[in-house]
Amino acid sequence: MFLGIEIGGTKLQLGLGEGDGKLLGLWRGSVDAAAGGEGIRQEIVRAVPQLLAQAGIQRNELIGIGVGFGGPTDDATQTVIKSHHISGWHGFPLAKWLTDLLGLPAVICNDADVACLAEALHGAGQGLSPIFYMTVGTGIGGGLVIDGQIYRGVGKGACEIGHLVVDYRDENDGYCEGILEQVSAGWGIASRARAYLGSDRRGRASALNAIAKDEITTLRVAEAARSGDEYCQWILDVAIQSLGQAIRQMITLLCPRRIVIGGGVSLIGEDLFFAPLRREVAQGAFEAFAGLTDIVPAALGEEVVIHGALALARDRIPF
Amino acid sequence: MFLGIEIGGTKLQLGLGEGDGKLLGLWRGSVDAAAGGEGIRQEIVRAVPQLLAQAGIQRNELIGIGVGFGGPTDDATQTVIKSHHISGWHGFPLAKWLTDLLGLPAVICNDADVACLAEALHGAGQGLSPIFYMTVGTGIGGGLVIDGQIYRGVGKGACEIGHLVVDYRDENDGYCEGILEQVSAGWGIASRARAYLGSDRRGRASALNAIAKDEITTLRVAEAARSGDEYCQWILDVAIQSLGQAIRQMITLLCPRRIVIGGGVSLIGEDLFFAPLRREVAQGAFEAFAGLTDIVPAALGEEVVIHGALALARDRIPF
Repeated sequence: MFLGIEIGGTKLQLGLGEGDGKLLGLWRGSVDAAAGGEGIRQEIVRAVPQLLAQAGIQRNELIGIGVGFGGPTDDATQTVIKSHHISGWHGFPLAKWLTDLLGLPAVICNDADVACLAEALHGAGQGLSPIFYMTVGTGIGGGLVIDGQIYRGVGKGACEIGHLVVDYRDENDGYCEGILEQVSAGWGIASRARAYLGSDRRGRASALNAIAKDEITTLRVAEAARSGDEYCQWILDVAIQSLGQAIRQMITLLCPRRIVIGGGVSLIGEDLFFAPLRREVAQGAFEAFAGLTDIVPAALGEEVVIHGALALARDRIPF
Repeated sequence: MFLGIEIGGTKLQLGLGEGDGKLLGLWRGSVDAAAGGEGIRQEIVRAVPQLLAQAGIQRNELIGIGVGFGGPTDDATQTVIKSHHISGWHGFPLAKWLTDLLGLPAVICNDADVACLAEALHGAGQGLSPIFYMTVGTGIGGGLVIDGQIYRGVGKGACEIGHLVVDYRDENDGYCEGILEQVSAGWGIASRARAYLGSDRRGRASALNAIAKDEITTLRVAEAARSGDEYCQWILDVAIQSLGQAIRQMITLLCPRRIVIGGGVSLIGEDLFFAPLRREVAQGAFEAFAGLTDIVPAALGEEVVIHGALALARDRIPF
């Protein structure tokens, strides 16, 4: 039995399980950025006995801890390389800190990487290899699992597809260059939808003008696009085209068997996300690899990182 | 003891060795495209006894055959997927054909992939992982070796960095889009040098005007660039910038420990190739991975694919 911990930008989740795709207990909380590492410590100390009691599991049945962390981690030193959310966690020895706190061996990794492991072993990629996982949410993260093993480059992270450079059309249909996240992540979609509302002919006719700027979200853009709002359709088109462009580059290098996509933006629907994305990826694909990779929605939902943290612990902690 | 065979576009080489980075015999020949598969069969049948006799090795000491093929291959079926050079070799069962011919088990793979294996195990990448290998010659190929294993995607090839889309400046300093090979491979450099000679101010002043168009090669371009020819410097600048752009995208996804580069274009010199390429890759690199990957020249020269074919055989054929 392992303890899985997800420490995200805002999300703090703990789960119990054997790393086999089943959860025996789940505790949902949140990261209070102002309270920093001490706040996280207090939450974990409070959550663990509750989780164990609810699942009817003794503390001495726990073998170790797996962690999915929302930021870059170092495999060799088992430290957080840097954190934008938690002050004082630059170069922080997270695994050792958890071992000291809970008296159990701990192993840490980046959250998108362990999410990929979970989807590959127990989710939408089960039985296939290699699996490329993408989370298209507030930001865009990626992971690659080859025959059940996370690919980590030199051991400080890999598959940062959200940071691939793409070119895309601006509001005057000229070409700009930027990183994928700026155009296709939830934050990017919403901020582009706000930015061009006044300067674009279609923007001035958009239903988005009826709501306050800070209420413009990817979901609102998607709803309006589905109702025929040309401006919102254009905002989403550019996001999907850029995603397709980055995915084509990734396939040219990695030719995975399957791409599994999760995260909030992927939930706007088959009609607005997966169907146009598959068409976009197919257009202009590298011929020799065309048709070898399929694209499917993630299967493990909000618990994907917990499943991955447990699978990581099962793989790395001797028992 | 294994037999290694390299079947390239024009090159046919055979070598003997244990797959440990040492060659006990080497036979150099060429592929006669007009003679097709039958021509290759005749050359192999002629070469093997000569090789064995020169090395003083008995035929029954051979355990198996490894092949590096200059085109896409299928791991599962051990067939050539397609060949531009050898007619009739689309979907050709190359491993079985060699087994029937020589009475030995055979394993085949793409030439850039086995070259990467050789450089990773016995060349410029020794002791490090992951290793990304590039050959920048007439075309541009790539390979990735992780802990001694070739990464092959779904088993039909991967790491086709020469087919990444890059944007680059044309002769009027406008932006164009194309694949890396068109700009930075030997063929691309020479053809761009020919194409803009008359239309570009610098081109009309270039020393290349003194030679026949079909004598313009990457080597000539490099020699003129080194002598201060502005046009040739510009042709090479664009090639190096595009290579750098593709390598930055690759690092964002794969963050390998080392990039090993071989092939004719890489031999134009440290001053014209490796030094400017390292500067270009560093500029605008994804910050989190900056400085984690170094770039070095290949170590195994003209025999790299033979070393890789032997290492492949050693890894895959039971003995």
